[in-house]
Amino acid sequence: EEEKKKLLLTLKGKENITLDGQKILLYANIGNIKDLAAVMQNDAGGIGLFRSEFIYLEQDHYPTEEEQFRIYKQAAETMAGKRVIIRTLDIGADKQCDYFEMEKEENPALGCRAIRICLTRPEIFKTQLRALFRASAYGKIAIMYPMITSVGEVRQIKAIVEEVKASLAEQGIEYGNPEQGIMIETPAAAIISDELAKEVDFFSIGTNDLSQYTLAIDRQNTKLDPFFDPHHPAILRMIQMVVENAHKAGIWAGICGELGADQELTKEFLAMGVDELSVSPGSILPLRKIILETNVAEYKAGKKC
Amino acid sequence: EEEKKKLLLTLKGKENITLDGQKILLYANIGNIKDLAAVMQNDAGGIGLFRSEFIYLEQDHYPTEEEQFRIYKQAAETMAGKRVIIRTLDIGADKQCDYFEMEKEENPALGCRAIRICLTRPEIFKTQLRALFRASAYGKIAIMYPMITSVGEVRQIKAIVEEVKASLAEQGIEYGNPEQGIMIETPAAAIISDELAKEVDFFSIGTNDLSQYTLAIDRQNTKLDPFFDPHHPAILRMIQMVVENAHKAGIWAGICGELGADQELTKEFLAMGVDELSVSPGSILPLRKIILETNVAEYKAGKKC
Ligand SMILES: [Mg+2]
Ligand SMILES: [Mg+2]
Repeated sequence: EEEKKKLLLTLKGKENITLDGQKILLYANIGNIKDLAAVMQNDAGGIGLFRSEFIYLEQDHYPTEEEQFRIYKQAAETMAGKRVIIRTLDIGADKQCDYFEMEKEENPALGCRAIRICLTRPEIFKTQLRALFRASAYGKIAIMYPMITSVGEVRQIKAIVEEVKASLAEQGIEYGNPEQGIMIETPAAAIISDELAKEVDFFSIGTNDLSQYTLAIDRQNTKLDPFFDPHHPAILRMIQMVVENAHKAGIWAGICGELGADQELTKEFLAMGVDELSVSPGSILPLRKIILETNVAEYKAGKKC
Repeated sequence: EEEKKKLLLTLKGKENITLDGQKILLYANIGNIKDLAAVMQNDAGGIGLFRSEFIYLEQDHYPTEEEQFRIYKQAAETMAGKRVIIRTLDIGADKQCDYFEMEKEENPALGCRAIRICLTRPEIFKTQLRALFRASAYGKIAIMYPMITSVGEVRQIKAIVEEVKASLAEQGIEYGNPEQGIMIETPAAAIISDELAKEVDFFSIGTNDLSQYTLAIDRQNTKLDPFFDPHHPAILRMIQMVVENAHKAGIWAGICGELGADQELTKEFLAMGVDELSVSPGSILPLRKIILETNVAEYKAGKKC
């Protein structure tokens, strides 16, 4: 174990590049600002998923614009020019926040959650967007919207973003120009990813929710384990489709769900042309090791036999 | 209203054929044996969805093989050679049956329901299959399995069916040879419908559940109506894909969800090559009217302009 750790440390500072020269980004998922240290220690190329909901879940009131701004700015500055992808509020389902006073739902995973809350209660959304746009002046922040199902939703978001920018400009408040992407975590989004790709700067595939909906299986319901196949061909086909549609539109596509760290699939993801894997900080160096030992062309040829 | 009814009655006995000669089957959905009268009155070509769960929900004990056999036999005999597609037990989610003593689930729609209950408790499943195979000797019964997500599940079902047939044969009990199909109502099933088509005799697309999972929206949660688009392009693309995959494998594909009766989509379904629409009895003649007035080639040409 000690030895393994040492071996991994020798990988720090190296590029994520295969034997035949294919590069991939290895980013980190974080659920708290305190995780930034682990991100740096494990040599992440950036933050691929900053779960902003912790800011809401740790408090007993709606976080103010200033509270949020300080946290996003700190992340941007700490990462010093590296990309920091911040996901907007993703509560609902198994993550509940009392002061939102949400009604109880029969099927919370198929309920009012994430972007649906933000579009239903735009004042909460605008506060977060103001903080994000302001913090973007201090580093390479990207904004990511969760639980998208349609082009219409993306256009609604864009309209709200324009309002927020106009209001910041009018008030003479400095703001940046972050990339804006969406999570692909509903089957609908995967299937119309060709249309969605024309609207955004990047995709990040959320394999946990995508698998849950595609297989119609609550991931938290262990009774259904016999029916749950994390490598189900429908999931892998959707990932492939999303990556292809992204590339056709000239944008990049990553994976930020658990599947991204699944070492049995790393070669497969390289073969699919996935541009980024965002994983827990501790998974970065083990994945780099696999990538450095992979020949993608050989892997593809082997699959055809 | 009176006049409209009379007009529709003139359509009885007519074929479901478009102006340019394309035929489609119009079948009826029924939720009780008492609905058979309405099926005949409305000139259905068959029963496309016989919801067998009513037999379970109306009682306070597990229905016996004999109780079920009598009901399936009656349906088969009443329909006199017309196809009667009986869906195996589809409880769970919003349809609960106390004596099954199912545990409460956080997200019942993503829970232990339908075929998952049958595969987890094969004795219940076998009782129903015995009744269905026996009744198949008395008419054109077809069996349809709900909530399929994988080829593995279909193979499990086939193994159980073989056991049931062997046991009937051994006991010298007469049984028929029903067609066996599956519902396509999970995104997973739609996406691997090319693989599934090799395993079964037909597909019936359950658009209610398929939409619910594809859009990650509980259909019963009216708060989400602003986010629910019944004509979402992802749903229509999946239907198209399923029909194409069915035809490539030489099997037929129908629709038995609410969308099947959506008159705004009838021409579209004809253009897609859908082979069957199964709807509530009262929707059959209105759909026949549209079909008789449609020129599919013209409709397709019009779309391209
Ligand atoms: Mg998610
Ligand atoms: Mg269903």
